[in-house]
Amino acid sequence: MDLKIKKKYRFRLKEGLSLEGRVMEKTKYNDNNSIIIKLNNGYNIAINKEDIEEIKEIVEKIKKEEQIDEKDNKVEYINELKSKVLILSTGGTIASKVEYETGAVVAASSPEEIIENFPFWYKLKNKLIYETILNEMSENFIPQDWEFIAKKTLEKYEKHKNNLRGIIITHGTDTMHYTSSALSFIIPYKINIPVVLVGSQRSSDRPSSDAITNLMAAIEFINSYSGKGVFVCMHSSISDDEFDIHSGTRVRKMHSSRRDAFKSINALPFAKILFDMNKKEFNVKILNRNNIPLNNKYDDISIKFSNDVVLVKYFPGMSREYLERVCENKKAVVLEGTGLGHVNIKELLEPIKKLTSEGKLVFMTTQTIYGGVHEYVYKNLRLLKDAGVVFLKDMISEVAYVKLCLALENFGKKEEIVEYVLKNVVGEISEDNIIYH
Amino acid sequence: MDLKIKKKYRFRLKEGLSLEGRVMEKTKYNDNNSIIIKLNNGYNIAINKEDIEEIKEIVEKIKKEEQIDEKDNKVEYINELKSKVLILSTGGTIASKVEYETGAVVAASSPEEIIENFPFWYKLKNKLIYETILNEMSENFIPQDWEFIAKKTLEKYEKHKNNLRGIIITHGTDTMHYTSSALSFIIPYKINIPVVLVGSQRSSDRPSSDAITNLMAAIEFINSYSGKGVFVCMHSSISDDEFDIHSGTRVRKMHSSRRDAFKSINALPFAKILFDMNKKEFNVKILNRNNIPLNNKYDDISIKFSNDVVLVKYFPGMSREYLERVCENKKAVVLEGTGLGHVNIKELLEPIKKLTSEGKLVFMTTQTIYGGVHEYVYKNLRLLKDAGVVFLKDMISEVAYVKLCLALENFGKKEEIVEYVLKNVVGEISEDNIIYH
Repeated sequence: MDLKIKKKYRFRLKEGLSLEGRVMEKTKYNDNNSIIIKLNNGYNIAINKEDIEEIKEIVEKIKKEEQIDEKDNKVEYINELKSKVLILSTGGTIASKVEYETGAVVAASSPEEIIENFPFWYKLKNKLIYETILNEMSENFIPQDWEFIAKKTLEKYEKHKNNLRGIIITHGTDTMHYTSSALSFIIPYKINIPVVLVGSQRSSDRPSSDAITNLMAAIEFINSYSGKGVFVCMHSSISDDEFDIHSGTRVRKMHSSRRDAFKSINALPFAKILFDMNKKEFNVKILNRNNIPLNNKYDDISIKFSNDVVLVKYFPGMSREYLERVCENKKAVVLEGTGLGHVNIKELLEPIKKLTSEGKLVFMTTQTIYGGVHEYVYKNLRLLKDAGVVFLKDMISEVAYVKLCLALENFGKKEEIVEYVLKNVVGEISEDNIIYH
Repeated sequence: MDLKIKKKYRFRLKEGLSLEGRVMEKTKYNDNNSIIIKLNNGYNIAINKEDIEEIKEIVEKIKKEEQIDEKDNKVEYINELKSKVLILSTGGTIASKVEYETGAVVAASSPEEIIENFPFWYKLKNKLIYETILNEMSENFIPQDWEFIAKKTLEKYEKHKNNLRGIIITHGTDTMHYTSSALSFIIPYKINIPVVLVGSQRSSDRPSSDAITNLMAAIEFINSYSGKGVFVCMHSSISDDEFDIHSGTRVRKMHSSRRDAFKSINALPFAKILFDMNKKEFNVKILNRNNIPLNNKYDDISIKFSNDVVLVKYFPGMSREYLERVCENKKAVVLEGTGLGHVNIKELLEPIKKLTSEGKLVFMTTQTIYGGVHEYVYKNLRLLKDAGVVFLKDMISEVAYVKLCLALENFGKKEEIVEYVLKNVVGEISEDNIIYH
């Protein structure tokens, strides 16, 4: 059967599975033995021709306008904004589209192209301000981009602060938790309104995109929360009716492709947003108020992140030479150990002692992701502590890395750096006086 | 109040919390302002003296024998073994005890000391064989220890194979998923009975230890499953009544301290074991039969793991020089990228091209833990693919690292290594012919 590009077909596969989707252009990446189709849920899939048992063309009855209506069914229930919201775009999937020629996702070329995909814009447009500050996929961000985003956020806040209720930063999801963490240690000292990072796992021109609903949820949160802080707003389930507001230092991308990829780690989400199907309304429930800056001492922290920190995940074959090499010319290392903060002490205790005796800073987090590290429970941990390793409690590795980049540029003495990193500044460390073994 | 070591007290803290526990010896690690107590649930905690509002001594009525009875309430319901089970001990918390002087956990000195802690031993002892092959905490294991454990397992199997139903390997939890993965690629080709790795998060001399119940669940699994394969058996909830049998290549330690720390990643657990409180019996339910070796081609794989592989977690500040340095003198690198398998291409695309052009192998997994990588979805991914990066689908980073260590020692040509690593050998890669975008 001769398949037409962009037409819809139903494919019955030999193993019994049936699939319905739109045929995509052949690319240089798929060979002649496979077809790429876009499923109704927005996924692209490749199917092998030899697995196909039967193909039927689908005559499409639904018009394009109706499709847009469908993706927009919750927009009419969004609440009128109490005051203005500033949306700053930095790029990422949320500001990108599918390139029909290759099937790949690329950056969108203009703000108009993006806004067009967000139907709520037309309802709220007199209250929404949209500015592009950067146009980059977040995997390419480096610590200097965190500086840039922080400075631009403060600059745009100054420009628009009259009657401003909150700021949304749209961002690629890959390193969004690194950026949210970087902003968390700076922004709440300077701005008294919430700053919410929002991404999407599917580009906003797809009917299945989570971009619209994530943005709507972030707007509803800003509308009902009058405190400060840096947050991440994303789907908390694969349905379109549940969203989590994560504290900026307690969140991590935990799945490469699902809509509910972001999870709060070692803490409750800051808030939950539910769309009530019966009442046709959004509900915001605050669960956790932990990320309010605790320490006024850091009011004048300067927006500068060091490139002299490395984040090193331990693995069983790690040799003494390897550890020495990764720390060469660097001032500090975050070691992502096993369990409660272990590395192979037979191989690495001596080089760690050497590093700390040379004045380098060695910190420990855990590669289990959940839970914390501890220097007391096992003898091997005590040996590491005695060698000068600083155990970072239940701080996430990525947050530890970001915080250390900031600390190196802000504090001169080793003791000051360690004091800052170990202090719970914005809720990134659990505040128990109880140490669990 | 003058507190006596090893005596039990109830502490009421200023913030309202009450705690009951046994006072531990002061160590050089806790200062004069805090007290370490062992709670009834086996946790050690440190409390600040200034937080204590009131202290009451508890007169202990329960005798030691009664305490042992209490921790043993499910033992009478364990089923009689159909045939023998061989338990090989390699060390770890499951074979360790609390040192009363310091409160730290140390390796136990003799097998008798360990067996004493497992009450089911007396019911099943004519069917259980116990041998110590190693006595090491698993954080110190290197790839050569995987070789040693694999060879010893085969050797002990030969010695005891008459009427043998399964093998249990007790192991420290920190790197248990690395070892289970290493054994998975070797053992099922040589042994037709199940091999189950079992650890514990609390040492077996504590009343709260999960060692006993994890071992009982592993024995019940072996008793009811007559296939082959390498598995991990651990608690699947914080209660004592639910256990997961994980496929050896689909499991990861996902919490540093909880009993239910081990989770199956990108797959269902192989089986679930439930203890039915009403019927007083164990139930084994097989959920997933995916880890049967698919490929007889690898029957004669040799038990040798290379030290020329590195596992490198990407972070935003990673420089060109850093990547070059970590790959120095190495043959292959597993890059743990962001999302679907990204790194900063502005900085790293050129050095990656250089590495692959020098004949080095560059593989990509994801630091999101859940989900897989993909070379098609984004333009940046395609650039990496074109630079020679091999994307490892939904294989876990740790498994990719272990498999590659094995592949380097077994295959000479680059193409053969890549073919092996990309092939689903024992269920470590999802077998869909559908590629999700």
